[in-house]
Formats: sequence, structure tokens, C-alpha cells
Amino acid sequence: MKIICKQKDLSSAINIVQKAVSSRTTLPILEGILLEAYNSTLKLTGNDLNIGIEKKIDIDIIEPGSVVISSRLFGEIIRKLPSSDVELSLDDNKLTIKCEKSKFVLTGQDPLQFPELPSVTDENSLSMDKELFNSMIKQTIFAISQDENRPILTGSLLELKDNVLSIVSIDGKRLAVRKATIESNSNFKMVVPAKALNEVNKIIASSNKDESEFTILSTDKHILFEVDDIKVVSRLLEGEFIKYAQMFPTEFKTKVEVDTDELLSSVERASLLAKEGKNGAIKLAVGPNMIEITSNAEIGSVNESVFIDMDGNELEIGFNPRYISEALKVIDSEKVVLEFITEVSPCIIKPADNDNFTYLVVPVRMAN
Amino acid sequence: MKIICKQKDLSSAINIVQKAVSSRTTLPILEGILLEAYNSTLKLTGNDLNIGIEKKIDIDIIEPGSVVISSRLFGEIIRKLPSSDVELSLDDNKLTIKCEKSKFVLTGQDPLQFPELPSVTDENSLSMDKELFNSMIKQTIFAISQDENRPILTGSLLELKDNVLSIVSIDGKRLAVRKATIESNSNFKMVVPAKALNEVNKIIASSNKDESEFTILSTDKHILFEVDDIKVVSRLLEGEFIKYAQMFPTEFKTKVEVDTDELLSSVERASLLAKEGKNGAIKLAVGPNMIEITSNAEIGSVNESVFIDMDGNELEIGFNPRYISEALKVIDSEKVVLEFITEVSPCIIKPADNDNFTYLVVPVRMAN
Repeated sequence: MKIICKQKDLSSAINIVQKAVSSRTTLPILEGILLEAYNSTLKLTGNDLNIGIEKKIDIDIIEPGSVVISSRLFGEIIRKLPSSDVELSLDDNKLTIKCEKSKFVLTGQDPLQFPELPSVTDENSLSMDKELFNSMIKQTIFAISQDENRPILTGSLLELKDNVLSIVSIDGKRLAVRKATIESNSNFKMVVPAKALNEVNKIIASSNKDESEFTILSTDKHILFEVDDIKVVSRLLEGEFIKYAQMFPTEFKTKVEVDTDELLSSVERASLLAKEGKNGAIKLAVGPNMIEITSNAEIGSVNESVFIDMDGNELEIGFNPRYISEALKVIDSEKVVLEFITEVSPCIIKPADNDNFTYLVVPVRMAN
Repeated sequence: MKIICKQKDLSSAINIVQKAVSSRTTLPILEGILLEAYNSTLKLTGNDLNIGIEKKIDIDIIEPGSVVISSRLFGEIIRKLPSSDVELSLDDNKLTIKCEKSKFVLTGQDPLQFPELPSVTDENSLSMDKELFNSMIKQTIFAISQDENRPILTGSLLELKDNVLSIVSIDGKRLAVRKATIESNSNFKMVVPAKALNEVNKIIASSNKDESEFTILSTDKHILFEVDDIKVVSRLLEGEFIKYAQMFPTEFKTKVEVDTDELLSSVERASLLAKEGKNGAIKLAVGPNMIEITSNAEIGSVNESVFIDMDGNELEIGFNPRYISEALKVIDSEKVVLEFITEVSPCIIKPADNDNFTYLVVPVRMAN
């Protein structure tokens, strides 16, 4: 292998595929990036066996070849090189990196030992708008469970049925659903790990804006995201996702409409006192024109008032303030609607002007 | 106490004095900020007994008074309030904070328990240019020792003698000296802890640029920095500073002139391999037109070449790369001069175009 490429192209490609490289692993080969040079292209691959990322860059090729090279050290070196041409040449298992007056020699590993990315055929495929997918993930990813004891909840459900894509996240205390209408002949239902969704969202955010669409392919074991010339493959989570639709109440006793930012600011301020207290909760007292938000701790207390429009019964209900503020942060609409039944029933939060996003949160029992 | 002030003024004042508040202390009163309201002024004070910071803001005063309030919680609350008028009122030891529709009540502590800042009279005083002082500290602070076993070296020597101000830092392996000519009648010699210099430098960096001068006052125990309406008081380190002047060699066998940025980039790249190796060192081979910088580790090797102008003998000498790169980073001049005697003698680094800054670094013995 002997190639010449641009330092900037190589550095940015390493930054992308490095996200799939294990930092702690018992398999040293997984700490490396696979470099494969052929047909005027250098393909870089990182793979931690849960997620794999592949990126291609244009190069001048003198001799094709491949090697696995330490991801961390290779990345640090390429980033520090001047913005100029970089020559990579392989002799036995020694990779020589030359750029202007710098020369590094690094010991590589056998490319045949590197685990291949799973092949994902177009059994199910979907092309959709990058920005739309990005916003759908942002509105649901924060509600994914961190609890490794219930692995199926450490990812989001992606379900495409009758031209409606639903993305759903659940932890023990709350549930976020985002829906969008998509033109497609496919139908699928799969649970994608949080890490893959997070990495794909970062790749979309920094991707070429001229290209508005990207592609999702899947089998029953794996999902493949193709964003421009970057491929992200992830294993799917196995098992049955929770039947979430039946968790939504159908009738409400109290309905509130309120300015999103005002409610968010008040909840965030009240949370400062809540986290000093025993149960970490805030209390919402919902009255005809006003929500009063209060919290008490040994060191002090807080009282916040927010004007509202209200229909139905007055009630007092307690919440973990983070579960409220995280939902309010991802709602773009100026106004939100809150729906309540009793002080021990889940509350619904949704934008006032559309039905795309629905959030359910379980209250905290308050001492009297 | 009952006062009205602007949220922004109060928030920025808290940010400043908080730097002197203990986060871990056995004296709960030191976790607080002292608030003192009198004569249309609110004075805020933080004091961890090593360093104290005081800042005054203009307020509307309804009733004077004082209280000590939790620095962390008070800071978090004020930062989150809307940019509007804030009312602070004290009833017994309860401080009520009102702003628009928010109301917090916090339990305060007795202001008489708060340790007074030491009084620093104008025994020795010096007014000097803020920017000059800022750059002098930046060029020396990184060479202050972290070793608490030699407390005198955990600060910088500030010596004013015959209109020359010298700032000197030493750890076991290197020494940085910055000198400047200052118009002053004072003479002093004192050792100021790193933390005080660091905080003063941050305050200067964000201070009013229309006011170019600031003031230093000192006694034999304390130093007071007055930057605009902010006062920083620090205790001085006790003991005799190392007689550093005699550490500088007077004759050299090898003198090199080199582009500062080129040498810095090469040393930083070589350090990537050095830190993989056993002794963490880089080797400089100084020849007639070139320095070759090399380092070897099990995983690989590096070779960097930098063009130089050289007088005297060739030599090979080893260094901790961080000790070289930290000095090069604070030299503004385009070219630097390196002076060597032998491979076991200290090396001098200084700007090629002035004598204001001199840096001495001890080499690392290299295995053959």
C-alpha cells in the first residue's frame, strides 16, 4: 500500500469513524481503524461489534493495500500534521506517514483479523429528509432508558406503518413519541440502540446540506444508515418493545395551555431548590389562571407563578423537574398543552399547534 | 436589609467573587458570599482564607444590612433569573429574592462570623499597565511548581528593584523569568501563590479596556490587587525564594536560531510518540542547518526536521517535550534562540528579538 491524500480529508474521516472504535476492549484489533486503499479510494472503518462506521475519501493511489492502525495515535498524529499532502506507505506491518518534514513509522495489525461489518441488504429501505430525522431523534432520544437490566428500553423503537414513521423512547417514568408522515412502500419495526441514533444524528448535523435525503436499510438483525458517503451499521436490540399505545389515557379532568419558555424557565429555577430537598420534586398547583410551582428544602424554598389558560378541575401534583424540563426543551412550539387526570395519574405534554409529539410523564407522590 | 439591583450586575459580581469561595471546607461560613448593603452599594465578598475577592455594584437601597448566603445556590438562582430588577430583603436570617414572578427564600448565616479580609495599607504600591502584567504572568505561571513539599515554589517571585519588575517561576526542572521596565519609586520582593495570579489574570482579561492601569499594594504578609472596582487579596508565601540568577550559565558552545511556530509544531508532533515511550523524552540532534527531533516507542517512531541557523558545536540532547512546548507557546516573537553547553547542561530558550523573557530547562539523560 502506498497512497497520497489530503491531510484535511484524512483527519475529518478519522474523526468520523473513530466514534465506532472501542476505547476499552480486550480485543486489541478493535482499538484500530481499518484502512483499505483501492480504486482511487481510501476506505476507513471503525467497528466495536455493536456499531460500525465506514467513510471513503478520494486519494492518489500508487499501490493498493490494507492495514489496521491504532485509532487514537493515528488520529492524534494526522490532526497535528500541517494542512498538506500526506503519504502513507506500508512495508510489512510498518506504516510510514510522511508530510512535509515529518515522518512517523507505526506498527500496524493484520487487516484480515479485523471484523467485517455485517452486510445489510435492502430488505427494508427508506429514504427520508435528514433534518426531519434529526429533529425526530432529538425529540425522543433523551427519554431512552439507561437501565441495562431492561436492554430493550436502551434504544428507540422505529416503526414504519402505512406511511407513518413513529419513533418511541421509554424509561420507567416517561414516554416520548414523535410521528411523521413519510412516502414509502416499506413497513418495519425495530429497536435501535441509543448510541447508534446519537452518532447518526451527529453525522447528519455536520453533513452536506445540499444533499437533503439519506437512506435507512435494515434486516432483522441490523440497521444501516447511509449519510452521503458515510455508512453507519448497528446491531438492533432483540426482544419485544413495550406496547406503548395503551399507556396513553383517553380522558382528562384538567387541561392547561401555557407559554413553553416561561414554564421551562420556572421549572428550571424551581429545580435548583428541588435538588437540595429530600425527594428532588417540585409541586405544581394548577389553578384557574395560574400554575404555582413550589419546592422546599432545609436551606430554603421557591415559589414560581406562570399564567395559564385552564379548563377543568384544579389539582396539585408533584414531578421530578428534569422529566418536565427535558420535554419542554425539545418542543419548538410557542405554547404547550398539559393534560391531567388526578395527582397520581400520568400527565401528558404536547405542542399546542400540532399532534406530532406526545410525552407522558408519571408524577411523584407528594407528602402532605 | 432591603435592596433592588439589576440581575446582570448581581450575576456577574457573584461569578467574580465565587472564585475565592471554598468548595470543600470544614467551616460552613466559608461556603458563603458576604453581602453588605450600604450607601447605594452592595459589596460582595468571597474568602477562603488564602485568597479573598471583593466586588461592589450600584443598587437602590431601601434598608442597609448584611448577610452571608450560600455561594453556589445563590449563584445558580441569580444566573437563572430573567434579566430584570431583583429585590433582596432580609428578615431575621431569611433572605428573600424576588424577580418578576419568582420568589426564593434562603437561610443565611451571621455576617459577624465571616472572616474579614486582611487590611493591606499602601506600604508598597505600584500602578502598572494591565495588559503588560497579564502577559508577564502568562509567560511565567506555567513554570510554577505543583509540589506542595516545596511551598515557596508554588508561587511566582515578584521583585521590583530600580524600576525593573521581574516575575520568576521555578519548578525542579525549569525556570522562567520575565522582566519589564516600570516607572515606580517602590522596591519590593514577594512570592505570590499561583491561584492568586491566575484569578487576577482572568479578572484583568475580562476587565474594562478603557482603564489601562491597575494597582498592586502589599505588606510583608499580603498582596492586594485593585482592578477597576474589584479587589483581590492574597496571603504571600513565606520563606526565601531560590537564588535564581546564579543558575543561568554565562557561556555557550552552541547557539541556534529557529522559527518559533515550526519548532513548536514539530515538538508537539514528536511528543505524541514520546508519551508512548518509556521515559517520555524527545531527542534533539542539532546539526549545521537542521535540528532533527526523534522519539521511539514500542509502537513506532517519529522523525521531525526543522531548518535552523546554528553557531558552534553539534550536539544531541534529550528533553521532556512539554517543557519545551510550554515555553515556545508563550513567546510571541517569530524566531527563538536556543543556547546549549553540553548534553547534560541546562538549555536556554529566549525570543530572538528582545531580552524580556528567559527560560532555562534541564535536559533528560538519553540511553545510547
